[in-house]
Amino acid sequence: MLEQIKQIKTEKSEISQELKELRAELSKLENTVKNANLPVIITFDGWSASGKGSMIAQLIKSLDPRFYKVVSVRSPSDTDKRKPWLWRYWKVLPKQGEFLILDRSWYRDTVNAYMYGEIGKETYKKRLEDIMTFERQLTDDGCLLVKFFLHITEDEQRKRIEKLKSSDVTNWRVEKHDKINMEKYEKFFGLYDKMLAKTNTSFAAWHCIGANEKPAAELEVFSAVVNAVNGAVKAKELGVRYEEKPQFETAAYKYTDFRLINTPLISETDLSKKLDDVEYEKKLKKYQNKLFKLQNLCYQKKIPVIICYEGWDAGGKGGNIKRLAAALDPRGYEVHPIAAPEPSELARHYLWRFWTRLENDGHFTIFDRTWYGRVMVEPIEKLTPLERVDMAYREINEFEKQLYDWGAVIIKFWVNIDKDEQYRRFKERENTPEKRWKITDEDWRNREKWDIYEEYVNKMTRKTSTDFAPWTIIEGNDKKYARIKALKTVVKRLEKRLEAEDKSK
Amino acid sequence: MLEQIKQIKTEKSEISQELKELRAELSKLENTVKNANLPVIITFDGWSASGKGSMIAQLIKSLDPRFYKVVSVRSPSDTDKRKPWLWRYWKVLPKQGEFLILDRSWYRDTVNAYMYGEIGKETYKKRLEDIMTFERQLTDDGCLLVKFFLHITEDEQRKRIEKLKSSDVTNWRVEKHDKINMEKYEKFFGLYDKMLAKTNTSFAAWHCIGANEKPAAELEVFSAVVNAVNGAVKAKELGVRYEEKPQFETAAYKYTDFRLINTPLISETDLSKKLDDVEYEKKLKKYQNKLFKLQNLCYQKKIPVIICYEGWDAGGKGGNIKRLAAALDPRGYEVHPIAAPEPSELARHYLWRFWTRLENDGHFTIFDRTWYGRVMVEPIEKLTPLERVDMAYREINEFEKQLYDWGAVIIKFWVNIDKDEQYRRFKERENTPEKRWKITDEDWRNREKWDIYEEYVNKMTRKTSTDFAPWTIIEGNDKKYARIKALKTVVKRLEKRLEAEDKSK
Repeated sequence: MLEQIKQIKTEKSEISQELKELRAELSKLENTVKNANLPVIITFDGWSASGKGSMIAQLIKSLDPRFYKVVSVRSPSDTDKRKPWLWRYWKVLPKQGEFLILDRSWYRDTVNAYMYGEIGKETYKKRLEDIMTFERQLTDDGCLLVKFFLHITEDEQRKRIEKLKSSDVTNWRVEKHDKINMEKYEKFFGLYDKMLAKTNTSFAAWHCIGANEKPAAELEVFSAVVNAVNGAVKAKELGVRYEEKPQFETAAYKYTDFRLINTPLISETDLSKKLDDVEYEKKLKKYQNKLFKLQNLCYQKKIPVIICYEGWDAGGKGGNIKRLAAALDPRGYEVHPIAAPEPSELARHYLWRFWTRLENDGHFTIFDRTWYGRVMVEPIEKLTPLERVDMAYREINEFEKQLYDWGAVIIKFWVNIDKDEQYRRFKERENTPEKRWKITDEDWRNREKWDIYEEYVNKMTRKTSTDFAPWTIIEGNDKKYARIKALKTVVKRLEKRLEAEDKSK
Repeated sequence: MLEQIKQIKTEKSEISQELKELRAELSKLENTVKNANLPVIITFDGWSASGKGSMIAQLIKSLDPRFYKVVSVRSPSDTDKRKPWLWRYWKVLPKQGEFLILDRSWYRDTVNAYMYGEIGKETYKKRLEDIMTFERQLTDDGCLLVKFFLHITEDEQRKRIEKLKSSDVTNWRVEKHDKINMEKYEKFFGLYDKMLAKTNTSFAAWHCIGANEKPAAELEVFSAVVNAVNGAVKAKELGVRYEEKPQFETAAYKYTDFRLINTPLISETDLSKKLDDVEYEKKLKKYQNKLFKLQNLCYQKKIPVIICYEGWDAGGKGGNIKRLAAALDPRGYEVHPIAAPEPSELARHYLWRFWTRLENDGHFTIFDRTWYGRVMVEPIEKLTPLERVDMAYREINEFEKQLYDWGAVIIKFWVNIDKDEQYRRFKERENTPEKRWKITDEDWRNREKWDIYEEYVNKMTRKTSTDFAPWTIIEGNDKKYARIKALKTVVKRLEKRLEAEDKSK
């Protein structure tokens, strides 16, 4: 693709009027973006010294600094390295109506890591897949993504870098990478070119800009942004997907297919299973001891563990989590109770609040209710349009796959009880003063929707039980049985994982 | 103090019944804490191998893992080091109704940094002052703070550490610090002892526990927690401050006095000041260029810059900020517009949402509205009781002093206009389609309260204009004049600071 990029030479004066108009238009568009609740991400990648920084400086002159954020992407920090690699981008996603401008992006991370031998070819390819999934998820959610690649020729780059180096004021800005980027221009050219072709998708097409000549480049960037914002706002009004005519042929995009595992209908589980006190105490001790040791090993091997609890109201999730947590070194886990989203969470992709809650590798992240609210309470309470809900099954599988690729063990529990048992527990809560806070009118209302919930639960376990993140149905009428089953499941999954780890060495 | 700590030897069996009852009580208290909206912080400091970790493990067995968080304090991370030193503790403050349990705390940071020569005596003393301010602010805000120091004798420590070292399973847990803590027992003893005496305040008294004998220590910790929680809940019900009888004589606590600078009443400012277009453009360019260079120097010298904008509705803060931001490298600043707090913010100390928004050193943090909402909109709209508002002037001075001590330049603007000018601007907003979003019924309602606002503004500038964080009143009827004054003020303040920096070398 890069060979086709023209370096247009224009006199500044020729285009200054045009640029002025575009600036004014962008200023106005900002309100439109705010009113349309459109999240906008603009990324700038390209060669060292291609003028990304000054281009961003020009762009933001037309924007209100209260509604954009510029993030300069450098090498990942210590914290970034202990999270899934896209975490640091999820973290900074803009709210609806706001702009995020990235000075280098997930592309830089990926190309540099590969170029410098930090990741191999397989991981590199996988990362490009992750990127496409990420970009598709964002744009599926209505985010406008405008990607720029600033291209300069080898001579031009050398000239610019030499100039920067020659002055005391700017010398410090030339980093080691910039020098290598210049010295290995040809090698980078090949990498960039393939990367651009591979990730030039219909939903997130590249804008490759010839940046030898700044005024012309600026004009191109501004008109691309103005067009895209205009187009996306209009598309949003019409309720259609925003598409633009791409500069180059787009790459074929293929959804990843996930192998699904059969899970029983929840009505098929045997809720009569139970444990007596003696057996319970014995097993509790046994599995808690095992788990404590396994946690230690996971910590040492930096394996992240994600445990998801879903289940009927009064199913006993709280008590179950408590027995699990009791086995763990408290410094190594966190329990996140998930309630209704706050305004800042509602204004972003629904997975955002889960991405940002992930603990470091080596730690346990326990969710008391999860992202599966998207495919249960949200459609049932009509909080989200059904077509978005339908997309969530795939999005969730993709999310969990990325967690798995990060190295995580993902354990998902549906704590199952029957309707009679729920009734008994609701009544008990009402009649026990210190449990009364646990029962609300909403619980009774939800109970009336038992059948529709059951339908959605079955759909969920069927559509999101993958080999890397299978569902486990916990028979929960007997709390003791349920606790042991959860503990045992976690122990077995971790043992299996650690065995696989040992074998691979 | 440490010499007075008794190492009580008790048979486990003797106290197991008592402990069981305390456990049960603590479990029940958790609901009380939730219902009373009480934030609870329990800190564990003490010798290496004194059993902090296992004590915490015991304690949390009685708590629901959804409502507590255990944070293990290690050496500050790279990010921690680029923030004010207490930032990492502010960041993890619990919500009302939740427990934060700290495995080592701000005391560890301070004593270790001093012991290992990372900070000198003066900084050490200042840090202890910071701690007392921090603890006072938290408890003034109704937080329950229970501080434990686990004390073991030299022999006991040596025995424990040798034992840990002797097993492969536990050997990795003995860190470098633990060995030094053991080898320099006497030196640490002296340090701990003085530190404990100095920070044993009436609002945050120490519980020093003889921890040679685990069962006895556990009993002491549990009963201290149960008593404190009971006491704090009762005190909250009665609307009084929670005080407990301290174990040792408490240290005298003295408020820091801040020298206040005279600021004019806002009615005394000359709002007729203005600039013509030619002068404006010339100065705008001049100061923007200067600012850009100064930002660079601040970045290199890692000086944090905090700029606060307050002012009348329609005072022109937005446009003012825009001109300021336009001068800056976008990678080096962030603008935080402050609106009404979200639920998670309301559930914490009001300064929390500002602490957590601080950028790294070397960066600019620009607030469009600030913590001063506490002493303006909150009393006027009766969102906060007046006695808490009255305390805020001091709390804010303390906060800003801590920012100053971190190295920050703090610039605070009140953008002043008169009532007629506001009326003109409101009307103009109503009559201009793309500005209409800026004007709401609330703005008109606030306008009716002009006089009371003016009173509070004058009180605010008078009570919080310190030599390290003075207020600057911006005459804002002429927007051009206002923008230049703000820019010039920032330039002058940064120049002054950089000069001082150069001189001190």
